[in-house]
Amino acid sequence: MEIPYTKMHGLGNSYIFLDLFHFSIEEEMLADLAVQAANVHTGIGSDGLILIHPTDNADVGMRIFNKDGSEGKNCGNGLRCVAKFAYENNLVNKPQFIIETKAGNVTAEVFHEGDKVEEVTIDMGVPDLLRQEIPMRGKDNGRVVGESFEISHHPLEVTAVSMGNPHAVFFVDKIEEAPLYELGPMITNDSRFPEGVNVEFVEIVSEKEMHFRVWERGSGVTQACGTGACAAVVASILNGYSQKNTETCVHLSGGDLFIKWAADDHVWMRGKAELTTQGTFYWKRKS
Amino acid sequence: MEIPYTKMHGLGNSYIFLDLFHFSIEEEMLADLAVQAANVHTGIGSDGLILIHPTDNADVGMRIFNKDGSEGKNCGNGLRCVAKFAYENNLVNKPQFIIETKAGNVTAEVFHEGDKVEEVTIDMGVPDLLRQEIPMRGKDNGRVVGESFEISHHPLEVTAVSMGNPHAVFFVDKIEEAPLYELGPMITNDSRFPEGVNVEFVEIVSEKEMHFRVWERGSGVTQACGTGACAAVVASILNGYSQKNTETCVHLSGGDLFIKWAADDHVWMRGKAELTTQGTFYWKRKS
Repeated sequence: MEIPYTKMHGLGNSYIFLDLFHFSIEEEMLADLAVQAANVHTGIGSDGLILIHPTDNADVGMRIFNKDGSEGKNCGNGLRCVAKFAYENNLVNKPQFIIETKAGNVTAEVFHEGDKVEEVTIDMGVPDLLRQEIPMRGKDNGRVVGESFEISHHPLEVTAVSMGNPHAVFFVDKIEEAPLYELGPMITNDSRFPEGVNVEFVEIVSEKEMHFRVWERGSGVTQACGTGACAAVVASILNGYSQKNTETCVHLSGGDLFIKWAADDHVWMRGKAELTTQGTFYWKRKS
Repeated sequence: MEIPYTKMHGLGNSYIFLDLFHFSIEEEMLADLAVQAANVHTGIGSDGLILIHPTDNADVGMRIFNKDGSEGKNCGNGLRCVAKFAYENNLVNKPQFIIETKAGNVTAEVFHEGDKVEEVTIDMGVPDLLRQEIPMRGKDNGRVVGESFEISHHPLEVTAVSMGNPHAVFFVDKIEEAPLYELGPMITNDSRFPEGVNVEFVEIVSEKEMHFRVWERGSGVTQACGTGACAAVVASILNGYSQKNTETCVHLSGGDLFIKWAADDHVWMRGKAELTTQGTFYWKRKS
């Protein structure tokens, strides 16, 4: 089966994009396709698959599949790429528009020179902060801020934020010493998070700067996670390390994002989206 | 810069191929291009880059660059893919032809249905077995067969084979317990191998069957290494585990290869080559 695709990345968080305005594929094939296209050895290679599709509820729709075939709700780096693709390929005809995701509708604004988009700002919405909104198990239903969280004899403190998907943020003194590979796979599957969780370790540099590493639910370590960067800045403000309505530079493995938790409670994310390849995937389906 | 490419793999050992019959690129760009195209996060993603080029000395020429930008001499899985590409794209017009490599000329034969090639047999040439031909440091200049080789307190025994590139083969009882990630990076850089070495661990199942894992010089762990599979079968025969002129099935992580060390001392390798993607790489050169 010949599948036309575009590969883009936001800070090294790379996805294969299918333009379902101009191509169609059966629903039952999507999980297999995501797994096999994302495999660098026998497929293309990426962190997952994103469908860009027509919708009645917004200007353009997106669905995201992780490299293990599971469907995700939202992805900040993917959203910036979707916005770039939609604008450059005339799926929309205005610089600010609405993208439908499984986590709700999202406003995107592209910054373009001619018809080329280099940077995108996304309204990542209002974070959900109550325990059952994350969701996370526990006694009360207040916010989870600096709560004691022991795992594998590590006495951590967790701050939990939902950006449409669940995040567990842990502050560390030195980002290089964060136990990402040791604890990431344990925390993401921990029973206290009934839907799993994205795991972030954060080192505060100043009120306006932080270092960030992530273990993504369903994908493992990635170069960057846009919703995770938003969750990290919200968590930083909840813990008193930085201020609302001020842009914070988040240094991820793949590059920088600029995040602001605005006075109206919306979180804004600004960053690059880059085209890497376009072509045909010759898919020999193994199922 | 827009670079037309084809991605193929032999048993999951994947390369990006440039057709220099129809495209040209400056020599000084090649190492950067290999590193950046092979990066799955910000490029395409592969084990390296292979150039398919015109030559006066054979029917078609190939050069291989590892994902760290270093130039290799030979690659069995890459050779099968080059043969498939050359035949299917009419760079040659006969099923048996000669491919020039940095390690010398190689005979390839494609098995095709119509114009589609599924399997290729490669004459991998005559192995070099003398110590200085590997090259490997040591007292005498005989063959290196089951020689004591201590590293990091592991008392191993090495058999050394050159298939145009150097291989160090170690037999183990259980392939799952081979110390590939622990010792691979140490052995490949060991001073006893002045040009580095590809490191193979092998479990003998029977005279005609073996399991195989590899740490490739310049690339690390890969799903398969064609010259390594040849070296493993030669080493097995040198140690009395199997026979000349009999095809051995080698189980690699990425699939099976069928290797025969023939009576005339040539090593023949038979296996699949598969097309995965074709398209354009939008290269923003970082140097």
